[in-house]
Amino acid sequence: MAGSYILNGNGELAGLAWLQESGYIEVPLLITNTLNVGKVADAEVSWLLKRHPRMGVTDDVPIPMVAECDDSTLNDIQGRHVKESDVFKALDSAAGGPVPEGSAGAGTGMMCYEFKGGVGTSSRVLPPKEGGYTVGVFTLTNFGERQDLMIDGVPVGKEIRDGILKRHTDGSIVTVVATDAPLSPGQLNRLAKRASLGMARTGAVGHHGSGDVFVAFSTGNRIPRNPDGFTYSAKFLSDDRLDPIYQAVEEATEEAIINSMTATGPMTGRDGYTAAAIPLDELKAVMRKYGRPLE
Amino acid sequence: MAGSYILNGNGELAGLAWLQESGYIEVPLLITNTLNVGKVADAEVSWLLKRHPRMGVTDDVPIPMVAECDDSTLNDIQGRHVKESDVFKALDSAAGGPVPEGSAGAGTGMMCYEFKGGVGTSSRVLPPKEGGYTVGVFTLTNFGERQDLMIDGVPVGKEIRDGILKRHTDGSIVTVVATDAPLSPGQLNRLAKRASLGMARTGAVGHHGSGDVFVAFSTGNRIPRNPDGFTYSAKFLSDDRLDPIYQAVEEATEEAIINSMTATGPMTGRDGYTAAAIPLDELKAVMRKYGRPLE
Amino acid sequence: MAGSYILNGNGELAGLAWLQESGYIEVPLLITNTLNVGKVADAEVSWLLKRHPRMGVTDDVPIPMVAECDDSTLNDIQGRHVKESDVFKALDSAAGGPVPEGSAGAGTGMMCYEFKGGVGTSSRVLPPKEGGYTVGVFTLTNFGERQDLMIDGVPVGKEIRDGILKRHTDGSIVTVVATDAPLSPGQLNRLAKRASLGMARTGAVGHHGSGDVFVAFSTGNRIPRNPDGFTYSAKFLSDDRLDPIYQAVEEATEEAIINSMTATGPMTGRDGYTAAAIPLDELKAVMRKYGRPLE
Amino acid sequence: MAGSYILNGNGELAGLAWLQESGYIEVPLLITNTLNVGKVADAEVSWLLKRHPRMGVTDDVPIPMVAECDDSTLNDIQGRHVKESDVFKALDSAAGGPVPEGSAGAGTGMMCYEFKGGVGTSSRVLPPKEGGYTVGVFTLTNFGERQDLMIDGVPVGKEIRDGILKRHTDGSIVTVVATDAPLSPGQLNRLAKRASLGMARTGAVGHHGSGDVFVAFSTGNRIPRNPDGFTYSAKFLSDDRLDPIYQAVEEATEEAIINSMTATGPMTGRDGYTAAAIPLDELKAVMRKYGRPLE
Repeated sequence: MAGSYILNGNGELAGLAWLQESGYIEVPLLITNTLNVGKVADAEVSWLLKRHPRMGVTDDVPIPMVAECDDSTLNDIQGRHVKESDVFKALDSAAGGPVPEGSAGAGTGMMCYEFKGGVGTSSRVLPPKEGGYTVGVFTLTNFGERQDLMIDGVPVGKEIRDGILKRHTDGSIVTVVATDAPLSPGQLNRLAKRASLGMARTGAVGHHGSGDVFVAFSTGNRIPRNPDGFTYSAKFLSDDRLDPIYQAVEEATEEAIINSMTATGPMTGRDGYTAAAIPLDELKAVMRKYGRPLE
Repeated sequence: MAGSYILNGNGELAGLAWLQESGYIEVPLLITNTLNVGKVADAEVSWLLKRHPRMGVTDDVPIPMVAECDDSTLNDIQGRHVKESDVFKALDSAAGGPVPEGSAGAGTGMMCYEFKGGVGTSSRVLPPKEGGYTVGVFTLTNFGERQDLMIDGVPVGKEIRDGILKRHTDGSIVTVVATDAPLSPGQLNRLAKRASLGMARTGAVGHHGSGDVFVAFSTGNRIPRNPDGFTYSAKFLSDDRLDPIYQAVEEATEEAIINSMTATGPMTGRDGYTAAAIPLDELKAVMRKYGRPLE
Repeated sequence: MAGSYILNGNGELAGLAWLQESGYIEVPLLITNTLNVGKVADAEVSWLLKRHPRMGVTDDVPIPMVAECDDSTLNDIQGRHVKESDVFKALDSAAGGPVPEGSAGAGTGMMCYEFKGGVGTSSRVLPPKEGGYTVGVFTLTNFGERQDLMIDGVPVGKEIRDGILKRHTDGSIVTVVATDAPLSPGQLNRLAKRASLGMARTGAVGHHGSGDVFVAFSTGNRIPRNPDGFTYSAKFLSDDRLDPIYQAVEEATEEAIINSMTATGPMTGRDGYTAAAIPLDELKAVMRKYGRPLE
Repeated sequence: MAGSYILNGNGELAGLAWLQESGYIEVPLLITNTLNVGKVADAEVSWLLKRHPRMGVTDDVPIPMVAECDDSTLNDIQGRHVKESDVFKALDSAAGGPVPEGSAGAGTGMMCYEFKGGVGTSSRVLPPKEGGYTVGVFTLTNFGERQDLMIDGVPVGKEIRDGILKRHTDGSIVTVVATDAPLSPGQLNRLAKRASLGMARTGAVGHHGSGDVFVAFSTGNRIPRNPDGFTYSAKFLSDDRLDPIYQAVEEATEEAIINSMTATGPMTGRDGYTAAAIPLDELKAVMRKYGRPLE
């Protein structure tokens, strides 16, 4: 089961209408840059047809899911360099465990608050008395102006002014929230909204030119494609138990965004543009100055 | 300026999030079959980059718009036979004037109420005292079970029972409403909803498995990309004047759907399946029987 | 569990935000005329506080649900004649079984297609192979221009032209769909949309000045207010089984609207305005003329 | 012209459906506590009928607008103590100029982050090169747990732990954004979303039990009720100019929420509960400790 929230729709989420209508996700969600969405969607179709050769013959056709940010400051985005084999490799090698952060995958060319950004992840495990559920957040960051960056409330972006690269676009963010708490599609829409609040805590404005897309899904229920009989069973967390999960989503989103910046070095892209990494020593000094020393 | 309505989201409209957010359309809307959406979107990007070579270099990247229906009953949809050159040709040859109906373009493999369907169009011109505006409807029909078909209120689908081809999918509809009435995005969202009421008059159920997508746009205002100064001017029809336009949208949508069936002969597709055309003589007889003789 | 759809929002549904957020209904839904909404909502609060004296002391405060149509053509709507005792009586006497139709309750002053309208009901029982579920529809009709009225596809409004009373408002409709099929809030939102398609089959335009409000609820699951532990269980109809229910909703809505007119005599209201009842003999003759004799 | 955003719908905004449909506000928006919504809406009807005696006779009936928070921790909310004369007085004395903050009007019984809250306001004037527009924010605060409170990024709620009153409800917030920037309903919906980001910067979680309602309106265009001819003219800020306004909305919302706490003393309510005011000296010390001394 799944939900979504579009804070600002200057971007694309292939498969959005079906996600909103159905309340579930039935195909992999791929993440790439803006101009590769068509190619990646087509490659996802190819990959699905190989595994399900009756699709479009006797079975329903699939609707691929692809999200994107615009990495054209660093990347030759016109080139659309993602090949079908790249998509197949990503899908065939998908596995549990730690996710590479920073300049990995779709994150390679992304920038966040005019530092090098990219992929960030974070998670929270609720205490047993709140259900013991896990909330994980994956984000692809590509938004923000330097002066707005706040880390744990500290105005880092006003303090660290070096290496601002003039960008011509407003960027975007894709955030995926995953949880094993058994939540309904309506509850997951609400979770997706909370991720936008976590983003706000980093100082995000939600610029007009940004595609700010939030998806949330739960592994707590699985909808059978062909149930025995007419109905299937599900269990749901009582609404009264949601607040600790909301808090976890907000904290983990905030942290995942920061991690996307602290987990990477600089990146030099097209025409010699270099996106600076956030300088960790300077960051520590700023945090100390504002009464929040990092261990 | 533009609006949209998703009656049932078991389908795809590439560019939906940006249409909803912006309230306007800035790229061509292409219509194809479900599994070609990725290829067609990518081809639209190629076509746009050729005309606007600064996109993705110094200018914003485009978000293509593509809608679809599933023609897999008649078509080898897995083959994804639409080539980039087909998309270029469609875009380069786009022109005003009459639109080919029935089994044309994306309509080639579509079926409607278990007859051959495809492209249908219809329009209304309001009388001068209602503003004299024009409302045009384009539809791509690929939905419905025979028994539900009503034409001008007559239960045609219950009367004409021959040639029902067992289809495995529920089909979809794409409807585009165009008007020169100067309407706001909010008013155009409302127009898009009214198109679904016109569809209902043909007996449509809005099946679970259907992607029922309605887009409405107006040529009455043009938003400048880079206005002089901060603001641009627009004029809008007063809400009190909307009802005749609603009525026109409903009538023209109903008629366009019928036209998609009456404007085509039969079509033989993959594995020798043949979709029968609605038999016009029999249709005339049925209309007569129910007190509505056609001239 | 419950869902809703606003075809046209020129009206009020008190409690709408909470219905959309929660996906359930926890208080009675009252239906009255437009200017009585405040008084009726306040009376519902009084009634709830009497039964739950801890509300607003140690327990959550309730959010009343009230829908309305504008009966000012026939009624002295400024007078706001519904008293708290009327609301208490309605709530205390609520019971199962047949519902009075036509000029009953909130229906007393309503008009439909410029005939006397009001309350209409209809239901369908699905055959066992489709699950055997029951779908019931309650509607309060107060909309439409005579010329648009269609009954079972027959253009009745163009044929029966007598007794058209010039109305100054566009009217509204409230429709409540109830089912024992175990449906989720998302599925119930979809049902509510289908009720608008049933309304369209009677010729409804969805005028600008109308408040066209559709609510759907299911008795198939009950959400415990204080579940043991964190979660509660529910069962849901598989999406693939929805189509017969959609069809039932559309048919029953269409029929309920017609019943609201055929179940009542004329009504004389303020300033001597009289709303004519639809003439049943003439109606039978028209249905015969168009090949659909009534038994 | 006006827009709205419901971050969490556990609350009521009378008139919501019409606001969403029309994109404008045509009656005063009143703000009260949860159980007074019905009475206040009815009083607004009375006030409107006195000024427009043809409403409901020959003219359209009005749909009142009322928002609310639940002040039952401090207030005898069951008593519904707001009288029609209070509403008339509020409406008749409405005027420009400074707005009383803190425990004024609907703010009398409200609490924020477990301090005394209530009414807060704040505004920004954009520099001429960004258009020189004014953005004003009015908020009624009644939400939050102490530990979450952040002021300008400083974790004030973790530092000031005295006087936490155990509340039994989750509270709510009503925020109204006003601007003279000429914005469309779609742009105002986007502004309303940005106010939720400003709220997030104070540490707000958006609890399940909260009604978090955001309304935005512009005085930049006025829609004529009966325009000469069919159309009216409007001017709109180009979307590319929105970002400074978004930033202003976020800053002013954040500040208005803080002001609702700093502008009031403590309040003793029913059963002797006393809500403590935020201690300003202690607050200054905390801000200093975290490197942000207040002037």
